[in-house]
Amino acid sequence: MTQRYTTEGHVSLVGAGPGDPELLTVRAVRRLESADVVLHDRLVSADILALCGDARLINVGKKPRGKQTSQQVINHLLLKEYRSGQRVVRLKGGDPFVFGRGSEEAVFLREHGVPHVEVVPGISSSIAAPALAGIPVTHRGVSTHFSVVTGMGATPDGTSLEENWTKLVQAGGTVVFLMSVRRLPRIIEALSSVDVSMTIPCAFVESASTHDQRVVSGTLGTIVDIAEREGVTSPATFVVGEVVRFHEQISSASRPALDQVRDWTTILQQAAH
Amino acid sequence: MTQRYTTEGHVSLVGAGPGDPELLTVRAVRRLESADVVLHDRLVSADILALCGDARLINVGKKPRGKQTSQQVINHLLLKEYRSGQRVVRLKGGDPFVFGRGSEEAVFLREHGVPHVEVVPGISSSIAAPALAGIPVTHRGVSTHFSVVTGMGATPDGTSLEENWTKLVQAGGTVVFLMSVRRLPRIIEALSSVDVSMTIPCAFVESASTHDQRVVSGTLGTIVDIAEREGVTSPATFVVGEVVRFHEQISSASRPALDQVRDWTTILQQAAH
Repeated sequence: MTQRYTTEGHVSLVGAGPGDPELLTVRAVRRLESADVVLHDRLVSADILALCGDARLINVGKKPRGKQTSQQVINHLLLKEYRSGQRVVRLKGGDPFVFGRGSEEAVFLREHGVPHVEVVPGISSSIAAPALAGIPVTHRGVSTHFSVVTGMGATPDGTSLEENWTKLVQAGGTVVFLMSVRRLPRIIEALSSVDVSMTIPCAFVESASTHDQRVVSGTLGTIVDIAEREGVTSPATFVVGEVVRFHEQISSASRPALDQVRDWTTILQQAAH
Repeated sequence: MTQRYTTEGHVSLVGAGPGDPELLTVRAVRRLESADVVLHDRLVSADILALCGDARLINVGKKPRGKQTSQQVINHLLLKEYRSGQRVVRLKGGDPFVFGRGSEEAVFLREHGVPHVEVVPGISSSIAAPALAGIPVTHRGVSTHFSVVTGMGATPDGTSLEENWTKLVQAGGTVVFLMSVRRLPRIIEALSSVDVSMTIPCAFVESASTHDQRVVSGTLGTIVDIAEREGVTSPATFVVGEVVRFHEQISSASRPALDQVRDWTTILQQAAH
């Protein structure tokens, strides 16, 4: 039988989006405003954490000595806060179910008697980082599918990551690599060892949606040198495919705000009262 | 030289998300509230259109006689409204750059002298529809990549859609099919003709994020019959992969709202004033 608690809390797994607080969903803002405790990743920006009101903020992305809090510790912390009747938000960069381990947390909580774990999807950098750089992951006649992979971790079936990368690039659509800056040489080496054209365009979108957003583009044959010269650093999304050519066409040098008069924080503050 | 206009408008390509207005981004809400004219797709819900305030609403998803407005007509309409100084929102279901032709519109506008076309990413059903059904597109040890395809259209390089589908499913990650209800038999036939296990779990998530959300699941071998029996209809997202097994584990029968006291529409209305 499922164990129930008299003073039940509520757990929301919330996606924080790529960085810009305006790219939070309305539901995400509401959950942050009404949370008792927010367990957040390292990469969630101060602007977003500022929306959390009086909630206790727990950074589970990094321990004092620089190590990441283990997934098991996070799971138990979520459960403990829930059991003490807290409204708990687990806040993750991007979307909680795209390489976010959100589903591991959801499974753990459900297995430990939490009757409902809310999922609040977030804007995933896998789609939005290219888009904000004028790169559509799909475009009729150019790319009719896209795939999203990481540059890290192990595959479930024992095939190598390299094998997956090459299969997906060979399938012809757009391929988006998350968490891949340090693995770039390995990715390019894998692709160059099989029948993939080194003239395929590719680009890094660094710090997407923030004031520091920068696009560094090249081809599979040139990007390692270019990325090194330009000093590309995390967080950055790496996108591979013919759609990268749209960057020049679609993006503009300036990014004028529609109405800078009305500051969005004012709106959110009004909304909170 | 780029042609400029003295009374310039503003064009935003805005993603409306999967359907629930609370899954709009804060920026999307702001753009809708301050728009002079909103050109929207057929599938954008009345609840979302209600946020548009005094804007003129133009449904470009359907002509009176049931045909879709041609892309060329939409492009010219966007340009005309922009040139007459209007704040134009092009509102699309999901994300504007995921099979949304948003990039075609952006390219057209840029080529016709519009200096800046804003892109406001939206929550894509490709990730969110599974997530809201308790199906993570990635899960450590189960799926380390996902691909998103449509059941419609032509591929750019002359390979068949079928070939793409099988390649992506064979690559072992999660595959999400958008706009695929009517093509289901063709998809399953393609997969069964190659070395893909018919025991792979799969599910339709119908009307994701709305009160009508429904999950219909099976395996590649059983889903055609099940979908027919259950009468699955568009809009529905079809997800294929071992991650579908998490649906039972993660999702709960009831979906309690955190605080039903404070109605979100009130918040948005407050924000508008």
